[in-house]
Amino acid sequence: MTTGNASILDGNSFKAADAAALDDRRRALVERRQHRLGAAYRLFYRDPVELVRGRGAHAWDADGNEYLDLYNNVPSVGHAHPAVVDAVHRQMSLLNTHTRYLHGAVLDYADDLVSTMPAALEQVMFVCTGSEANDLALRVGREYTGGRAWIATSEAYHGNTALVSAHSPSLSGAEAMDPALRVVDPPDTYRYVSSEAAGAAFSAAVAEAIADIERSGDGLAGLIADSSFSSDGIYTGERGMIADAVDLVHAHGGVFVADEVQPGFARTGEDFWGFQRHGLVPDIVTTGKPMGNGFPIAAMIARREVLEPFSTARPYFNTFGGNPVAIAAAQAVLDTIRGEGLQAHALEMGEAMRTALRDLADAHPRIGDVRGAGLYTGLELVEDRETKAPDTALALAVLEELRERRVLTSVCGPSNSVLKLRPPLAISAADVPRLVDALDDSLTALGA
Amino acid sequence: MTTGNASILDGNSFKAADAAALDDRRRALVERRQHRLGAAYRLFYRDPVELVRGRGAHAWDADGNEYLDLYNNVPSVGHAHPAVVDAVHRQMSLLNTHTRYLHGAVLDYADDLVSTMPAALEQVMFVCTGSEANDLALRVGREYTGGRAWIATSEAYHGNTALVSAHSPSLSGAEAMDPALRVVDPPDTYRYVSSEAAGAAFSAAVAEAIADIERSGDGLAGLIADSSFSSDGIYTGERGMIADAVDLVHAHGGVFVADEVQPGFARTGEDFWGFQRHGLVPDIVTTGKPMGNGFPIAAMIARREVLEPFSTARPYFNTFGGNPVAIAAAQAVLDTIRGEGLQAHALEMGEAMRTALRDLADAHPRIGDVRGAGLYTGLELVEDRETKAPDTALALAVLEELRERRVLTSVCGPSNSVLKLRPPLAISAADVPRLVDALDDSLTALGA
Ligand SMILES: Cc1ncc(COP(=O)(O)O)c(C=O)c1O
Ligand SMILES: Cc1ncc(COP(=O)(O)O)c(C=O)c1O
Repeated sequence: MTTGNASILDGNSFKAADAAALDDRRRALVERRQHRLGAAYRLFYRDPVELVRGRGAHAWDADGNEYLDLYNNVPSVGHAHPAVVDAVHRQMSLLNTHTRYLHGAVLDYADDLVSTMPAALEQVMFVCTGSEANDLALRVGREYTGGRAWIATSEAYHGNTALVSAHSPSLSGAEAMDPALRVVDPPDTYRYVSSEAAGAAFSAAVAEAIADIERSGDGLAGLIADSSFSSDGIYTGERGMIADAVDLVHAHGGVFVADEVQPGFARTGEDFWGFQRHGLVPDIVTTGKPMGNGFPIAAMIARREVLEPFSTARPYFNTFGGNPVAIAAAQAVLDTIRGEGLQAHALEMGEAMRTALRDLADAHPRIGDVRGAGLYTGLELVEDRETKAPDTALALAVLEELRERRVLTSVCGPSNSVLKLRPPLAISAADVPRLVDALDDSLTALGA
Repeated sequence: MTTGNASILDGNSFKAADAAALDDRRRALVERRQHRLGAAYRLFYRDPVELVRGRGAHAWDADGNEYLDLYNNVPSVGHAHPAVVDAVHRQMSLLNTHTRYLHGAVLDYADDLVSTMPAALEQVMFVCTGSEANDLALRVGREYTGGRAWIATSEAYHGNTALVSAHSPSLSGAEAMDPALRVVDPPDTYRYVSSEAAGAAFSAAVAEAIADIERSGDGLAGLIADSSFSSDGIYTGERGMIADAVDLVHAHGGVFVADEVQPGFARTGEDFWGFQRHGLVPDIVTTGKPMGNGFPIAAMIARREVLEPFSTARPYFNTFGGNPVAIAAAQAVLDTIRGEGLQAHALEMGEAMRTALRDLADAHPRIGDVRGAGLYTGLELVEDRETKAPDTALALAVLEELRERRVLTSVCGPSNSVLKLRPPLAISAADVPRLVDALDDSLTALGA
């Protein structure tokens, strides 16, 4: 098991030595950043990008250069989407206050949100970030089960609070993990011969973790996982791949927390939520990033009986969580996804992208695998297809080459060898050949 | 030591039995809320308020009734302030993205923010909520000192994450506290004969806590406190009151975290930050609520050498933290505080309010104490002035009477006996007699 995802710990970050090559303006910004914000802030690229404007899946830098954005799942319905901008403006002009007064919109939105999910997921708590949603989920699950031990995947990132960091194995090179945490390998659909085999290996790993938890007396809280295994390397697999593992958790009295911060809100195209691809009914769902198209809003949705022991025992107050402006943003996002048919669009664009990338692989043997669902694609670079040895150096070099060609993205996976192609849902058909050409040129320039 | 602040745990909350008295519209909202959001969500008042519009220090409900808002410190420069609304609208129309690309505005704002503080406070990390800021602060302080034990005051509330809840003694009726936490009583300037005596008692309590930590081997991390002791009952005291206690913490190698979520951003009138009243230089400052006038933004500001061990050891990423829209809101708030002279205004209005309330006390012997700084006033209700026994029932009844007279506020302190008068800084001179008359009428109606 590899731990400490280089993407999260370091990855394609700017290094101090890169400063010399920058123009004065950007060197000054980089230096001010380091001085004022400190070392925990990482910056993408040797040659960092200064974005100042965005629209749809495109963004512009301070010099007026235009970029294709294949990285940002937060401005999900498109950068600066006017429906969200207008909704926020309208509500901000009226009122922005907390949830200790009544407000109808928060309830309308909550009803609308749960209507996209299996009926058992009935209750919603609003927070501001994915980290807050997962912090809450881990405590709610512990309170309900009485267990303390969570199972998570080896490169998972679930957020930045103390509790959540301690359950994010991708940070284990830097953070102490929770003593009760059990770490399992994700279902690597590329290295196992089939999705079935990957799913079976995942179930076996979860079974072993449960047995270990039961032996230890820690008590099983449950499994927390992103069903698209985003930071693990993007393993969407066949529909149903992880259902057995989740059944096992349930059979042993644990809960399943579906961290939908990345796959949620129509990204996978086939379904509105990533977990639906596997026919699951989670006990708790968390979401964040795309929920407000960049406005800070996130949520935890839970089965009533799972939330109740937590919520009846204590008050919970989140100053900004569920405020009417955040709700206006979130409602506009949901309405836009439906009104513009972005779920079907994500399916169509995603398939087109993977088909084109698979064709490209014929000419570039270092492309080991192209996988994903909807607008979430992982393209893995390898030393050779026989050994499937991940090629970190090539992946990081490709990122920089793509950036030179004004295509923005990042990497994931235990070796940072997987290009993470995760554009706004608003990407257009013309953007697909642009990506393919840029990647073709980048690989060619690198002799790969 | 009393624990479990009824204000936070229950306080002036709506109870199920109150539903019968509501009109159909509000009863339906209350029922939908309970059903959909669950029991952890608390609602103010027997007769909950449904606010739909705000301006300055005033708000309107769905029936068009106007209220004087003496509770909300979040819309600090005034509900729906056009400068903030416009700044957010402008930036949202351009771009909203994360901090892994360069953006000048976040650095300009960070520079501006630290310019309001002692020079030693040099580095800023942006988050979305006060809870996230404190979660980070507690870990930064532990990493720097190597100690694990924090000292906090007996009714303090510092936020809602797992780590921060476990350091919020006001939740101790519902949450397990951190095993290493030491709880001290706040400097109760009302029950001690003088601010000096209260400060000395506070120092003695801190000294005892430090000695206990040193005996135990837990290692001292430091003291986390809101220098206006907001949820403890509002004890602003004389300038310098808590300086000795903080010196003690420093002398024993601990850090001082000033939780400025409530007193910060000019509220105390005399100074921009609450800790400045006591001539302190904290090691870490956290802020939130008023920072973006309701837009979710918060920050942790630290001395460079205190942050460095944490920030060089790990990356920290907060998806929405410090995004250009949040920064636009925060910059507009800072500019408005300066442009409209709101700090001096807070001082003047606050003095006028306390003077008028002290005059009112002549006619109402159950007013035991009127205290505060700037636009942060605590008015304590007692059974009689001799014993100073807190009168919880009267305070809660006054809240409801004030609400009937369309004046919104809340209570704090270990017995919920202290009216918390904390209006937007944008309150006007005419609002002061309105409060005083409403309170006069309320006390008279209650035979007090
Ligand atoms: C899967 C997943 N969960 C949770 C989070 C945390 O979200 P936030 O940064 O909003 O706290 C992230 C952020 O990258 C994420 O990718
Ligand atoms: C003193 C203090 N600190 C921290 C917090 C937490 O802030 P937030 O609700 O934004 O997480 C609060 C909120 O009430 C507070 O009053």
